[in-house]
Amino acid sequence: MICFNNDYSEGAHPAILRALEEENLRQNPGYGADVHCAAAAARIRELAQCPEADVHFLVGGTPCNLISLTAFLRPHQAAIAAETGHIAVHESGSIEAAGHKVCTIAADQGKLTGELVRKVAAEHTDEHMVQPKLIFISDSTELGTIYTKAELTELRAVCDELGLYLYLDGARLASALTSEENDLTLADIAALTDAFYIGGTKNGMLIGEALVITNKALGADFRYIMKQRGGMLAKGWLIGLQFEVLLKDGLYFENARHANAMSARLREGLAAAGCRFVADSPTNQIFPILPRAAADALTQRYGFERWGAGDAGFQPVRLVCSWATKEEDVAAFLADLEKLI
Amino acid sequence: MICFNNDYSEGAHPAILRALEEENLRQNPGYGADVHCAAAAARIRELAQCPEADVHFLVGGTPCNLISLTAFLRPHQAAIAAETGHIAVHESGSIEAAGHKVCTIAADQGKLTGELVRKVAAEHTDEHMVQPKLIFISDSTELGTIYTKAELTELRAVCDELGLYLYLDGARLASALTSEENDLTLADIAALTDAFYIGGTKNGMLIGEALVITNKALGADFRYIMKQRGGMLAKGWLIGLQFEVLLKDGLYFENARHANAMSARLREGLAAAGCRFVADSPTNQIFPILPRAAADALTQRYGFERWGAGDAGFQPVRLVCSWATKEEDVAAFLADLEKLI
Amino acid sequence: MICFNNDYSEGAHPAILRALEEENLRQNPGYGADVHCAAAAARIRELAQCPEADVHFLVGGTPCNLISLTAFLRPHQAAIAAETGHIAVHESGSIEAAGHKVCTIAADQGKLTGELVRKVAAEHTDEHMVQPKLIFISDSTELGTIYTKAELTELRAVCDELGLYLYLDGARLASALTSEENDLTLADIAALTDAFYIGGTKNGMLIGEALVITNKALGADFRYIMKQRGGMLAKGWLIGLQFEVLLKDGLYFENARHANAMSARLREGLAAAGCRFVADSPTNQIFPILPRAAADALTQRYGFERWGAGDAGFQPVRLVCSWATKEEDVAAFLADLEKLI
Amino acid sequence: MICFNNDYSEGAHPAILRALEEENLRQNPGYGADVHCAAAAARIRELAQCPEADVHFLVGGTPCNLISLTAFLRPHQAAIAAETGHIAVHESGSIEAAGHKVCTIAADQGKLTGELVRKVAAEHTDEHMVQPKLIFISDSTELGTIYTKAELTELRAVCDELGLYLYLDGARLASALTSEENDLTLADIAALTDAFYIGGTKNGMLIGEALVITNKALGADFRYIMKQRGGMLAKGWLIGLQFEVLLKDGLYFENARHANAMSARLREGLAAAGCRFVADSPTNQIFPILPRAAADALTQRYGFERWGAGDAGFQPVRLVCSWATKEEDVAAFLADLEKLI
Repeated sequence: MICFNNDYSEGAHPAILRALEEENLRQNPGYGADVHCAAAAARIRELAQCPEADVHFLVGGTPCNLISLTAFLRPHQAAIAAETGHIAVHESGSIEAAGHKVCTIAADQGKLTGELVRKVAAEHTDEHMVQPKLIFISDSTELGTIYTKAELTELRAVCDELGLYLYLDGARLASALTSEENDLTLADIAALTDAFYIGGTKNGMLIGEALVITNKALGADFRYIMKQRGGMLAKGWLIGLQFEVLLKDGLYFENARHANAMSARLREGLAAAGCRFVADSPTNQIFPILPRAAADALTQRYGFERWGAGDAGFQPVRLVCSWATKEEDVAAFLADLEKLI
Repeated sequence: MICFNNDYSEGAHPAILRALEEENLRQNPGYGADVHCAAAAARIRELAQCPEADVHFLVGGTPCNLISLTAFLRPHQAAIAAETGHIAVHESGSIEAAGHKVCTIAADQGKLTGELVRKVAAEHTDEHMVQPKLIFISDSTELGTIYTKAELTELRAVCDELGLYLYLDGARLASALTSEENDLTLADIAALTDAFYIGGTKNGMLIGEALVITNKALGADFRYIMKQRGGMLAKGWLIGLQFEVLLKDGLYFENARHANAMSARLREGLAAAGCRFVADSPTNQIFPILPRAAADALTQRYGFERWGAGDAGFQPVRLVCSWATKEEDVAAFLADLEKLI
Repeated sequence: MICFNNDYSEGAHPAILRALEEENLRQNPGYGADVHCAAAAARIRELAQCPEADVHFLVGGTPCNLISLTAFLRPHQAAIAAETGHIAVHESGSIEAAGHKVCTIAADQGKLTGELVRKVAAEHTDEHMVQPKLIFISDSTELGTIYTKAELTELRAVCDELGLYLYLDGARLASALTSEENDLTLADIAALTDAFYIGGTKNGMLIGEALVITNKALGADFRYIMKQRGGMLAKGWLIGLQFEVLLKDGLYFENARHANAMSARLREGLAAAGCRFVADSPTNQIFPILPRAAADALTQRYGFERWGAGDAGFQPVRLVCSWATKEEDVAAFLADLEKLI
Repeated sequence: MICFNNDYSEGAHPAILRALEEENLRQNPGYGADVHCAAAAARIRELAQCPEADVHFLVGGTPCNLISLTAFLRPHQAAIAAETGHIAVHESGSIEAAGHKVCTIAADQGKLTGELVRKVAAEHTDEHMVQPKLIFISDSTELGTIYTKAELTELRAVCDELGLYLYLDGARLASALTSEENDLTLADIAALTDAFYIGGTKNGMLIGEALVITNKALGADFRYIMKQRGGMLAKGWLIGLQFEVLLKDGLYFENARHANAMSARLREGLAAAGCRFVADSPTNQIFPILPRAAADALTQRYGFERWGAGDAGFQPVRLVCSWATKEEDVAAFLADLEKLI
């Protein structure tokens, strides 16, 4: 079985395992107070050109999102997200469990716009309703689409106008930033958001994400909330070390470029075979709409997620490539598809 | 200024004030452990034909809703509500603050149906999403509409099929039950729901609602949660006494019949004047769509809420009558309207 | 049965009922946005000499405490309270349910001191523990004792030094302020705390407390939190009106003086009969230690709470007087006691 | 610098790194639905003789504790813990943040007894207080002490009598079970508790703990709560694989035996040098009371935690050994100590 189910099926880039082995018996202080976390944080500040930012290392995306929103929002404040937003659907109500409503709105291609945000904000007029305070976006989005610099700049402007925070879930930020259609830099992200995280789990690390808080007002006492919500890893240096390795010479971006290239090849092959797509994704997740019989047949040899129920004739699916996806597996998939269509 | 803004502008039915005065210097035990609460609870069990039900007295609707859902749901469980549902919009995120998501769906006339509930349930397939567990409805609804016995029976059947609870917000239950179009009894409500509340605040009491829990599995330790969430009144007997007075000889329903009659008169007058309505409400809240100029002019003398933004020519508004609405005020409103249209 | 169980056994001072009756059919806006709340708030600001303070009206003490702490504290912050503090024992974990730890410490006479606060603060050194941020005290305390101006000033100084808030639960503030041993004014309370509430329920009102927030930084968006936690009364004017009546010409303080006088008479009689006391209370709650046989016998005719288990020979009890306590009932109790001792 | 600060300073036992490398490029399903988690869970059920138990893998101890208590307790229910209990002190109020009070009591040697539990339970009499429902213990405790079979059996009996759950934090369970003074087996632990966790982080794994829920009533929908609280790792197989390696042939217990042996050597050396101890710990944490000058001097070369403030002459400290502690480091410490005393 060849899996295109997700980008966290494998372990870590071999360079990470090598570094872990080297470091394994050296003693490091606990809870992220070690040289590797310090070095990785410094490297991130440098790359993102935000020398004052707070950087925290967490084990996964849901912890990043829920701990950040827990720390940033007062009890009556809410997040605004696309209906497809990860916190709105796939985090089991973690934000609500932290006490906050997620105000959702249908968003084309999974992307919020200034207009959509203004619409949600305008519906919340007084203290009988929640107070929307934070915009939650992902880049790339849950549909594999990406924000342009113009779009992110517009969201920032709405935030400034309405007194909102802008939070960016970067579980697949590397894939977005290395996409051929991308015009954003890590520094742009840092400059335009109040906080964002740089995903590691889905881009070649064993575990780990790096949360970057650029709005100083939001960073106070963040480690208390991390600890309280179970997000402070005893061996925090494990995450710091991995980011150190990946960010040192650009391996982090190489991993994503590979994933994108593999997805591009799939996308081109699928398009050539006549498939349409749910969304125009230029990143490592693509959403082709397969003839139902083809989709069914492919599951004999390939793993992937069905994306909604589809209709009588067609089944939308999600195919995800990663740093570890092999060219021959992509080729095999396309060859099998061709036979089926 | 004559106010049709809501049904809680006045104090209490005079019979209640008389009873309060009589009882005023008698000593009653605190926290609802008194003879008046006992008698009112017994009367409610009798009227609703649910001799085993737990009855608790609370100061308002939001406390009823939030304390009930807090008590009934486990942390990962969610409520299903119409997009217009009170807990979805107008309780400032109280359910989310208690840790639970409210899954909303657009619902014609503000009323959930079995089909809508099934749709929401079907979208929640595994532990990466919340688990919808409770249907929240209001009768009358936020749009003044009411459930028929057939509709409520269908919702019950869906609940039984899917393992859900059915909770009914009865802030305006009296108005619903005394509506000319109603075919439900209090006993039906008790038999078909797991819990519901009988509203007092909006039907002639100073304060107070009576929460009725008919599903014994949901009632355990309810008073702990009441106390913990600030819902246990020191002078609980104040609420018990008021329900005693209103429920003894049917004054509770008389109050609502009066409110409905006043609204019906308004509705007929408005229809005769050519107005359309946002919803087909047979209860004490109506939602006429007024010519904008007329709406503006009427605000000189009458209080009422605008219902959404309307358009260039028309402004939907909400008019609410109560046990205390005077016939001459209704007549005056209609007379003024006629001049304006 | 004559009850000394508490100070909320009766209804309201007759002047309040008269005012309610007069106002009963006048229409008032909902949720506290009415002239009575405005007038009562203005009167409170005047009496407490805090012209900028926010004043909110709530139905009871637990709502005041839990909504305030919910609004004031960030998720990792904790309250410091005496082991006997109301939020530490008798609010069913309401503060914890709002997410905050209550750090307790044994406190002589139920009163926190600067030294005790410093001790608790010093034990909390880093992000692996909660961050104590608010001192919770009551005046009078749960043991009927009161704070002196010097003591409250010392607590303020510790707060300023350590960056803490000072919150005062004034469920029985009237009894404290009118105690013969008191040297604090309402203005002192307002000047020395960040927020406090003036209790109405236990001093002659049907329901209601007035929360006063003098620290402007803590007041932002408070009404959102009130609404969200079920603390915003639809007929908010009911509470405003009652405070208007009681505060207009000093009736509020007269009520408390009467309660204190009745308790003083009991205390003197008990002391004359040889009783010792659990605490030196100069307010409307006293805690005599009765010979067990006498305590048992008195329960035939009088209601009161046992205060802990006592020992073989003696039973500590709590006796509470109120604005409504009758001199003849006090005399009867003492006469019966005398026969028993 | 040689660190005795804790047992999570190093990475993982080399056998684990080897297994990770071997598995690294194999594709595994996400979120713990993989063969390694299945195998590790089966092995744990076998070793603990609880074939029906639910086993879940989490990244750390605080997530285990907070997610378990979140899942097991209703909103008004509380945990009972020793004053030194980890959830009472060192988890930043995580249990309170989940809504639950932790009722603490002073406990000799950090160990709860039936008598202490009964005392706490007896103080909670009605719905004005929280309802203690779960006993939280650690084995070994925060003071390195361990429970005997008789003691754990007594706690179980109290739980059965009072309707409480027994939860055991096993962050250092391996050290307890391999202690020379221990008479408990893993099967005893499983039989006597409702849930417990087997710590990996502190016994040779990179990350990971295995939560075992033997009380079927408590296991329902646990994965929802795991996901909601950020505790479900995308690459869950990482933890399953590590437990597989350590539990296959007893390496898990060998690691702990080594740690205990190293601590025993330290303890004997310290005792021989005349030191007293804060607690009688037969496990991998010991708490000697050092002459202050010696303690200060040792910090030049050795890392360890000061345990409280001590007094003028003496400083209690904590020394922790692990699977990775080297004999020569222990010898060096003792040699240096000897020179100083």
